[in-house]
Amino acid sequence: MRSGVGFSQGLRRKLGDGPAWTVEALRQVRYQVIQSDNLFSPDNRHLLDSSEDTPLRSGDRRLIIIDSNVDSHHGDRIRHYFDHHGVAVTIVPLRADELVKEWDSVSRVVDAMNEFTLDRRREPVLAIGGGVLTDIVGFAASLYRRGTPYVRIPTTLVGLVDAGVGIKTGVNYGAGKNRLGTYAPATVTFLDRSFLRTLDLRHISNGLAEILKMALIRSEDLFALLESHGTAVRADRFQGSTGELAGAGDAIISEAIHLMLEELHPNLWESVLERSVDYGHTFSPTIEMHTLPELLHGEAVMIDMAVTTALATLRGDMSEKQAERVYTVASTLGLPLWNDALAVPSLLKDALQDTVRHRDGQQRLPLPLGIGRHHFVNDVTETELREAVRLLRRQVQDLFPAHADRFGPLQVDA
Amino acid sequence: MRSGVGFSQGLRRKLGDGPAWTVEALRQVRYQVIQSDNLFSPDNRHLLDSSEDTPLRSGDRRLIIIDSNVDSHHGDRIRHYFDHHGVAVTIVPLRADELVKEWDSVSRVVDAMNEFTLDRRREPVLAIGGGVLTDIVGFAASLYRRGTPYVRIPTTLVGLVDAGVGIKTGVNYGAGKNRLGTYAPATVTFLDRSFLRTLDLRHISNGLAEILKMALIRSEDLFALLESHGTAVRADRFQGSTGELAGAGDAIISEAIHLMLEELHPNLWESVLERSVDYGHTFSPTIEMHTLPELLHGEAVMIDMAVTTALATLRGDMSEKQAERVYTVASTLGLPLWNDALAVPSLLKDALQDTVRHRDGQQRLPLPLGIGRHHFVNDVTETELREAVRLLRRQVQDLFPAHADRFGPLQVDA
Repeated sequence: MRSGVGFSQGLRRKLGDGPAWTVEALRQVRYQVIQSDNLFSPDNRHLLDSSEDTPLRSGDRRLIIIDSNVDSHHGDRIRHYFDHHGVAVTIVPLRADELVKEWDSVSRVVDAMNEFTLDRRREPVLAIGGGVLTDIVGFAASLYRRGTPYVRIPTTLVGLVDAGVGIKTGVNYGAGKNRLGTYAPATVTFLDRSFLRTLDLRHISNGLAEILKMALIRSEDLFALLESHGTAVRADRFQGSTGELAGAGDAIISEAIHLMLEELHPNLWESVLERSVDYGHTFSPTIEMHTLPELLHGEAVMIDMAVTTALATLRGDMSEKQAERVYTVASTLGLPLWNDALAVPSLLKDALQDTVRHRDGQQRLPLPLGIGRHHFVNDVTETELREAVRLLRRQVQDLFPAHADRFGPLQVDA
Repeated sequence: MRSGVGFSQGLRRKLGDGPAWTVEALRQVRYQVIQSDNLFSPDNRHLLDSSEDTPLRSGDRRLIIIDSNVDSHHGDRIRHYFDHHGVAVTIVPLRADELVKEWDSVSRVVDAMNEFTLDRRREPVLAIGGGVLTDIVGFAASLYRRGTPYVRIPTTLVGLVDAGVGIKTGVNYGAGKNRLGTYAPATVTFLDRSFLRTLDLRHISNGLAEILKMALIRSEDLFALLESHGTAVRADRFQGSTGELAGAGDAIISEAIHLMLEELHPNLWESVLERSVDYGHTFSPTIEMHTLPELLHGEAVMIDMAVTTALATLRGDMSEKQAERVYTVASTLGLPLWNDALAVPSLLKDALQDTVRHRDGQQRLPLPLGIGRHHFVNDVTETELREAVRLLRRQVQDLFPAHADRFGPLQVDA
């Protein structure tokens, strides 16, 4: 690890026509991501011992905010675990999907923390659920008394490989996806694949979209793994039912997380606006909010990646053959390549404008260079976007002729 | 300024029974506090030039959130200023008092930012108003797209010497004062005493309470200045109407701010829980919320300081003579020394308990040692608090016999 060279801290006073002060300070941030399958098996001690500052001991108490669905599937074994270890838990189930990813849900979590009379230094809040739940609870915790520690236990694949390993929290506001939020890492995030056992396959695909994203921008090897084993590990829900499936599943998840953290850690607060992990996230926020609740997050991301794959093909940065490989893998992973929202003339333009506002007046659009590499561009035009949509439509129709009836009409000026 | 020795950053991967990652990162924070009287005088260029990253130029636009009261007094000259410099401003007046220091007000600011289609990298939001307004706008800005820069222009004395120089934002939630908030400094804060001209004297006193706090814990010299010139600079509203008043006013404000920043800057995120600037803020949050809207923030702080002055006297850490000096100065500054809430038996106990929860299970109570020094204690008992309240009542009645009728009955078990 590097030390903090180039940073400074202190207080300067300048006397002139009026006094002026400059304050400089450094904040150290540290968090852990620990893979631990069967976290709530009574003999698993990870949750008890891993948090150095706040180990969990018999006689302690904890507030747990859990996704209502996860509670109905896994609530019994979670309660049994804490019971077994003598920890008194208050479990608050919360509905957590994109439609209620809003301030009211944050407010409920705050109410629960108030009722628990939380000791914010000794009693980190536990968040058990998908990305929406951990974003909501992380947001509430980061605001409560200006910062209360929380521990994250993602229960979906997108939570395990994406929402669960970064430091962003937040909720939607009006039509603005994650318009309000904070940067606030969970002290520890535990990745437990046993939760995936009860997940429907559509949600496995949802997470695979983020894994595919990391492959497309960073690793042809990871892409090849998805090509060879993606269908099988998806069907197996990453449970490692055979030796080969275990090996492939381990490699896919571990590599996706490692690449993600490599990209995130030097730029946690996004001061550098050219972020490769934004690939698939230029148009998808608008697409996702526009079609709500039709598309899951990863599905909207996949549609963004499908359009930008076509865009890269138009620009000669990707061959038609490579684009076909991308579309084929996406399809075998159960991900959509098209949504009729793409046919709405102004949608992609508006989405790009909103993203430009977010990226200091420039597009800073990550685009694939072949498979496994990327670059950033600033010169995408509206016309080019329309051509990319037409090309995508044609490529996908050629590749999957049986599904031609999936496509509605392109609107007149699109 | 010191460099960041002792900090570290990077990504570590550990392979064991399952992979685990540790992420360490540093966030550099930098902000300026600039005293500039008559900021909106057309020839004053501070606002235009001071923010290096986002200078304000003809043709630019800005969103301004302003306290409704300030707008009615100063709106014309503010509009004229921006007009003169060719800056198109959208001015949104907001009611901002303790009763509406809540999420709904934050939401209004967010609506304004959405309607303005704010470019968060180039268009810092301007907040013009008292501490409540700048806390609300700072909170909204810190959440908007996970962090939008803002510029603070406090218009009250408490804003100038306290709320305006730190990095805390937030709103009340239920009965919890500032229960929700963030640490998010304004890029620049401009301190302009010309706003104090239209402030009623009660609000001047409100700010003097925070100045008196700094004097009591850190500086007998500042206390002596308040003793000799407090009444006069208060009546003059820090406008420097004579040479002597200007000198005393400059010294009082500048010294209070400098001492405040000296205490704040090494501990901006309050990781060290023993904070001298918490003096007067142990019981006051509960007193202020309990009596809402009767007491201004500084008035509640003064009552806290009155009780703890009595407490220090009981403990022999302050002489009766010194306590009398404190009460006399407070009184000449127009500040209250008593509120009947003190007679409610459980109030101080409950307040202390809430503060203990906030300070990791210990009281960490700053208490004066004479005048100008302090120490921290952890052993204050409920009985001692009752004695302190009785002593305060007696001392104040002896000192100001004419005001004995101000005191309601002490409740039976108090």
